[in-house]
Amino acid sequence: MKMAIRYGVIGTGALGGFYGGMLAKAGHEVHFLFRSDYEYVRNHGLQVESVNGDFHLSEVNAYPNTEEMPLCDVILVCLKTTGNHHLPELIKPILHAKSVVVLLQNGLGLEEDLSAQLPGVAIAGGLAFICSNKIGPGHIHHLDYGKLIIGSYNVPEQEILKQIVSDFQLAGIHSELSPDLKFSRWQKLVWNIPFNGMTVVLNTTTDRLMSNNQTRELSKELMLEVIHGANACGVPLKESLAQQMIDMTVKMKPYAPSMKLDYDHRRAMEIEYIYSKPLETAGKAGFEMCKVAMLEKQLRFIQAHLLDK
Amino acid sequence: MKMAIRYGVIGTGALGGFYGGMLAKAGHEVHFLFRSDYEYVRNHGLQVESVNGDFHLSEVNAYPNTEEMPLCDVILVCLKTTGNHHLPELIKPILHAKSVVVLLQNGLGLEEDLSAQLPGVAIAGGLAFICSNKIGPGHIHHLDYGKLIIGSYNVPEQEILKQIVSDFQLAGIHSELSPDLKFSRWQKLVWNIPFNGMTVVLNTTTDRLMSNNQTRELSKELMLEVIHGANACGVPLKESLAQQMIDMTVKMKPYAPSMKLDYDHRRAMEIEYIYSKPLETAGKAGFEMCKVAMLEKQLRFIQAHLLDK
Repeated sequence: MKMAIRYGVIGTGALGGFYGGMLAKAGHEVHFLFRSDYEYVRNHGLQVESVNGDFHLSEVNAYPNTEEMPLCDVILVCLKTTGNHHLPELIKPILHAKSVVVLLQNGLGLEEDLSAQLPGVAIAGGLAFICSNKIGPGHIHHLDYGKLIIGSYNVPEQEILKQIVSDFQLAGIHSELSPDLKFSRWQKLVWNIPFNGMTVVLNTTTDRLMSNNQTRELSKELMLEVIHGANACGVPLKESLAQQMIDMTVKMKPYAPSMKLDYDHRRAMEIEYIYSKPLETAGKAGFEMCKVAMLEKQLRFIQAHLLDK
Repeated sequence: MKMAIRYGVIGTGALGGFYGGMLAKAGHEVHFLFRSDYEYVRNHGLQVESVNGDFHLSEVNAYPNTEEMPLCDVILVCLKTTGNHHLPELIKPILHAKSVVVLLQNGLGLEEDLSAQLPGVAIAGGLAFICSNKIGPGHIHHLDYGKLIIGSYNVPEQEILKQIVSDFQLAGIHSELSPDLKFSRWQKLVWNIPFNGMTVVLNTTTDRLMSNNQTRELSKELMLEVIHGANACGVPLKESLAQQMIDMTVKMKPYAPSMKLDYDHRRAMEIEYIYSKPLETAGKAGFEMCKVAMLEKQLRFIQAHLLDK
C-alpha cells in the first residue's frame, strides 16, 4: 500500500501554482511557499485559470517562509534558477532523511550544483512543457500544454518517483518518468536555447522567428549545435529532432518563452543554467557550440544593460 | 603636366558632401547630384561643419538628376549600397570613354557587380575612415577622422588614381592609394562587420560594446572570423589586427556606425555587401564564418521587421 506523500512547493508562481494547485485540488497535502503573494493568498486563496478548466482553492497551506512549514516528503522547487544560490537555506528547514527534492527548472547542471551544497540529499529533476503565467497575486493562467517529465539524479529508490508521477497523472497532469534525466534536460535545451535567447535578442515572439526564413534557419542551426553538443557529452539526441521541433514551433500559437517575459519585466534572466552550463559542459567534452556561445554573450550584454533601456 | 579632373559626386550626403565639398573648396570642378536637398542647396548652398574647420559653398554645381550633369572624368559614388541596382542608369549619362567610377562604399563585391552591369568601364573602390553625418538639407557634420583609401579594380592606368589621391591630399584629406583593393576592403570589414551589426542587434553604441567583457570578446571573435575568411580568400590579414582594432575602438568616442543610424532612422541597412557577399565569398573559398552568418540572419530579421517596431 502506498503512503500518502506530503508535498512542499518552493516558489508558487506560474509553475508551482499550477502543478501544486492541481495536486491540492486532487486531495493531496500540499504546502506552498509564497513570497509577495502570501497575505493575498491567505485571505483570498489561489485562483487557477486553465485551458483544462478553471478552479479555485480557498483553503491553501500558505507560508511566508520555510521555517514555518512542516517537513515534506517531496519538495517541488519551482523558483527561477537565478535564485538557486538561496536553495540550501530555503530547503533545509523542510528536509527529512527520506525527502526528495525535485528541481522543476530549466537548464543543465542544476542537480550537480545543489548536490554539492546538500550532500546526501536525494535529488530529481523535472521538466515542464507548459505555457503558464502568473497574471496577478495568487492568480495563475495556464494557457496550453502541461506535460511533466521527472527523472532521478541520485534518488536511491525509484518507487517514490513513480508515486509522484502517478499522483500527477491522477491529478490530471500528463506526467512521465524519464529513464535518463541528462537526456531529457538536453532534449529540452534543444528548444529552449534558440527560442529563449532569440526572442530576447530580437525582441520578438516564436511565430515571427518562424515566419522569417533567416531566423527559422538560424533556430534550426542553433538546435543542431545543441544536439551536437549533447552528442559530444554522450547523449544520443538525433539530428532529426531539430526539424521536428521547428515543425512543432511553426504550428504553435505566438509564444514568448519565460526568458522573454523576464526580459520584458526587467527581471534577471536564466542565462547561467540555460546557456553557460551547457556551453561549459559541451566545451569540456570537446565541442564548441559557436552560435550558442554568441547568443550567450549577446544575452549577457542585454542582462547587464537591462535597467538602462 | 596634369589635366584638371572634372569630378561628379553621385549622392551628396555625409560622405559625398564632405569629400566633394572639400574638393570644391580647394578649387576643383565638382558636380553634385542631389535628391531631396536639390532645391535647398540651389538656394542656400552647401554647409559643412567640420572638426578641421567649418566652411560654406555658396555656388554649388547642383543637379536633381544625372541627365543634366556634364560628362565627368571621375565619378565618386557616395550612395548607400542599398541603392546600387540604380547605379548603371545613374552613371551612364555622365560617363565618357576614359571616366573612372570610384565606389566610395563599404562592403565586398561592389566593383564586380557594377563591372558586370557596365562592362569595360574603369572602376575603382574607395574606403572612407570617417565619422560624418548629414544633419539637415545641404548640411554636413564631419565629427572625426577622414582618411580616404582608393584602389583600382580594373583601372587601366594608375596615373588617374594617383592624381585623385593627390587632389584629395591637396584639398586637406588624408588620402592614400591602396596597392590591393581586395585587401583594403577585407581589412575594413574586420571593423565594420562586428560593429555595424552588433550596435543594431543590441541597440547600442561602440563604447558600451567595448566596456562589457562579453561583447568585447564577441567583437574580437567576429573580427578573427573575418580575418580567417579573408585568409581563405588569399588575403593575408594578420590575426593581430583584431586586438589592434579592439584597442582602437576602446579609445574611440561613443560611436553609432552607419548601419545603426540607418536602423535608427528606419532606412534599409547595407546587409548585402557588408555581410552576405563576404559570407558568400569566404564560403566559396571553403571557410564558414559561423558567427558572422548568425549576425547576418539576425540583421535580416530586424530589417524585415524594421517598420513594425
